[in-house]
Amino acid sequence: MLNQKAYQSLSHTFQRLHRFGHLGAIAGWDQAAMMPPKGNEARAAAQAELQVLMHQLITAPQLQEQLQAAEQEDLDPAQRANLREMRREWQQANLLPAELVEAKSLAAARCEHAWRSQRKDNDWQGFLANFREVLRLAREEAALLAQINGVSRYDALLDKYEPGMKSADIARIFDDVKSWLPGLIEAVRAKQAGEAVIQPTGPFPVALQRDLGLEVMQLLGFDFDAGRLDVSNHPFCGGVPEDVRITTRYREDDFVQSLMGIIHETGHARYEQGLPRQWVEQPVGRARSMGIHESQSLSFEMQLGRSRGFLELIAPLIRRRFGDQPAFEADNLARLYTRVEPGYIRVDADELCYPAHVILRFEIERALINGEIEAEDVPALWDEKMMAYLGIDTRGNYRDGCLQDIHWTDTFGYFPSYTLGAMYAAQYFAVLRRQEPNLDARVAAGDLSPVFDWLQAHIWSQGSLWTTDELVRRATGEALNPAHYRAHLEARYLA
Amino acid sequence: MLNQKAYQSLSHTFQRLHRFGHLGAIAGWDQAAMMPPKGNEARAAAQAELQVLMHQLITAPQLQEQLQAAEQEDLDPAQRANLREMRREWQQANLLPAELVEAKSLAAARCEHAWRSQRKDNDWQGFLANFREVLRLAREEAALLAQINGVSRYDALLDKYEPGMKSADIARIFDDVKSWLPGLIEAVRAKQAGEAVIQPTGPFPVALQRDLGLEVMQLLGFDFDAGRLDVSNHPFCGGVPEDVRITTRYREDDFVQSLMGIIHETGHARYEQGLPRQWVEQPVGRARSMGIHESQSLSFEMQLGRSRGFLELIAPLIRRRFGDQPAFEADNLARLYTRVEPGYIRVDADELCYPAHVILRFEIERALINGEIEAEDVPALWDEKMMAYLGIDTRGNYRDGCLQDIHWTDTFGYFPSYTLGAMYAAQYFAVLRRQEPNLDARVAAGDLSPVFDWLQAHIWSQGSLWTTDELVRRATGEALNPAHYRAHLEARYLA
Ligand SMILES: [Zn+2]
Ligand SMILES: [Zn+2]
Repeated sequence: MLNQKAYQSLSHTFQRLHRFGHLGAIAGWDQAAMMPPKGNEARAAAQAELQVLMHQLITAPQLQEQLQAAEQEDLDPAQRANLREMRREWQQANLLPAELVEAKSLAAARCEHAWRSQRKDNDWQGFLANFREVLRLAREEAALLAQINGVSRYDALLDKYEPGMKSADIARIFDDVKSWLPGLIEAVRAKQAGEAVIQPTGPFPVALQRDLGLEVMQLLGFDFDAGRLDVSNHPFCGGVPEDVRITTRYREDDFVQSLMGIIHETGHARYEQGLPRQWVEQPVGRARSMGIHESQSLSFEMQLGRSRGFLELIAPLIRRRFGDQPAFEADNLARLYTRVEPGYIRVDADELCYPAHVILRFEIERALINGEIEAEDVPALWDEKMMAYLGIDTRGNYRDGCLQDIHWTDTFGYFPSYTLGAMYAAQYFAVLRRQEPNLDARVAAGDLSPVFDWLQAHIWSQGSLWTTDELVRRATGEALNPAHYRAHLEARYLA
Repeated sequence: MLNQKAYQSLSHTFQRLHRFGHLGAIAGWDQAAMMPPKGNEARAAAQAELQVLMHQLITAPQLQEQLQAAEQEDLDPAQRANLREMRREWQQANLLPAELVEAKSLAAARCEHAWRSQRKDNDWQGFLANFREVLRLAREEAALLAQINGVSRYDALLDKYEPGMKSADIARIFDDVKSWLPGLIEAVRAKQAGEAVIQPTGPFPVALQRDLGLEVMQLLGFDFDAGRLDVSNHPFCGGVPEDVRITTRYREDDFVQSLMGIIHETGHARYEQGLPRQWVEQPVGRARSMGIHESQSLSFEMQLGRSRGFLELIAPLIRRRFGDQPAFEADNLARLYTRVEPGYIRVDADELCYPAHVILRFEIERALINGEIEAEDVPALWDEKMMAYLGIDTRGNYRDGCLQDIHWTDTFGYFPSYTLGAMYAAQYFAVLRRQEPNLDARVAAGDLSPVFDWLQAHIWSQGSLWTTDELVRRATGEALNPAHYRAHLEARYLA
């Protein structure tokens, strides 16, 4: 008889947490996609009550003992990995004093609320007043977590989204990118200057866009018996692994963005739908990290979705809805979807300029948290880096500069995940293309199975069984290597 | 300083219950209206976890003491009413031993599951095997509750849906109905035999039906900022008072049923939307009873929705969607919506035949619970009563006879609510029409405010401040009086 008493007790607690989390996830999706405005107050109260309950469950005094005791029990490797992830979740909830959590949440709410109008008003000074307090508390949190975990302060926050990742490694990788990205952008822009891109002619009725999106999701293997597509202001992938809810938003004058957005969210969704079912109620059954999650959406959106084969595959589907326009030739679609143009706004950035936006934010937030710069230093640094990386002048334009993102009203350490995801995706596809040299032809013919099979076997089915580094090594045979990312970008944009 | 310590503590517990109930209600709506099939297992587990939690909260040992202590505290009348309703909810959850609750739920699940195929197969003997156990446990429950509350066994179950209502009063009222209903049905059928009714010509596209339904809901004052209309297999009114979710189902070959179904659910919805907002998180802020809830849906569906004025009001809206058919003249719509034809199935019954179905079930379930008859006696009694009340022969046809409803797989005491609701509605409108003799003309002109204002003032805003009897007396000046119901039916069907 195996000794697993403490482990089984923990397992039961985390199962309850998962089930309460299910209700919170569905209520959250509903709030964004379905709920009428007057439901907001009651929903917020109900969600807060659920949060209090879940916090009580995971801060119950017996858990610490059980986590300790379970370390000595007879666990198989998957259970041991689950115990590691339980401890992570427990730490996230238990390491900070309640007063700090409370203070952070108040400061964040105040800062975010004011930011909504301050951004419109280009009011950096107004934002700064609240931002100082947010930063002070984030530094306090970082110092506390850093001391407990024996890492640097910024790394302590980074660890929430990218467990095990060190900012020194990110800095090394991003420095590499910085060494070639501005030159690459310049070369690509010179090359594209002579290319004619035909714009599609609208309008593109919402019902047809939705229909197209659904067919493309079908092609991408989304399981409609275990999920839905709906509309929300800010597209996301939510719900639960057993029932994944993705959203998009439509504009009648442009279908290109919504379609690629659906492809992106479908990548997130298939990761969730493909997570190991026998572990679905336990921490080890969850997605590995934010960066790995983004690597799935970007595998779909950037690697597969903008590939020549895929554009050939969907061109007829687009024509069927919106008419036989020359803009819908695969060649032109490829030019449309790979157009490079540096701009102010991260979320509107193209594949090539996007990492510049991320690196800039990483460098600034790391220096902020580690105390090397102060809140008031942000705009000058922003201007300097935008000019250096993208040749764009943002002086005095806070609205489209350092005020554009919501993240810093309460989150530091998240930005790197976006570009790490893009890099992991490039690395997967380097392997995939080596294994299947005819990938584009197969995709163009509608056979996407090599991509799905590989991701299912190496990423989706693995949940959180391994650390991120182990996961990537097992999948690709090496640690994260930005050379694949560079090679991908050069092949796509300079070929 | 008021002494309300126990009361405030109870109030906090019931607020938490309300908020958890909110999540359960939205998840329940989602399950019926949105959820893809593979979400079912995880959703059931999450809902069950929530039920366990809520049961723990309301069976916590300190509640009994607090309920006792609060009786002695300084409470205003509304708080005192709230305390009364708290006690009711507490009793529902605490009076039965856990083993009985467990046994009931297992027997019900087994009986209902088998019933789904047994009904199709006309298999009364198969049903009987499970039904005996369901009945045995229901009698055990009834005996227990009867002893504690000092009422008869059937009344103890009835009290769950119609607090304070006695079956002797219902029997007296239903006996009155039985004395004139069969004769009235006969007279109406003779009168209608000579009338020509023109059937609308379809198809009626779902999008147009939905559009029509939404416009009619708008006319009926449904607040779309605090609720939605969606589709489900079994139409219902769910969600929470702050965000009411109603559903319907569409058939391309018939818009008449779906439209009237929407009007019915909108009646339920406005009750919920009109409940006293300052009490929304407390038991006293909830709807009074099942019968009163049904009195709202039937005020909308039967009293208002089938009234001459209302049919004149909506005739042009119907024509605008489905063309200028002679079937859509108000005269013909009135004939369509008041056609009387006895049939086997309760849920398909017209306004006039419906009470016969209910009285039959009330008489049988009351005798079953009180031990006057046994499970195997049901079919013979069913046949006898269907013949006596509606002149319909159901012998050997269990499928369309005693196997047609799901209720008896776990619920006894609910059926009277349907007809009590119809009677309350008739009684309200007797008052309303006395106060506003031009009601039909005002309604035809689009002014429905007399109906809404009266229901808001006398029913919706009153929540559970009063007992049902008090509520009805305050609203109409007298206790439930079936004479109004008879007068309404005679006026509508024999005039
Ligand atoms: Zn994403
Ligand atoms: Zn109803």
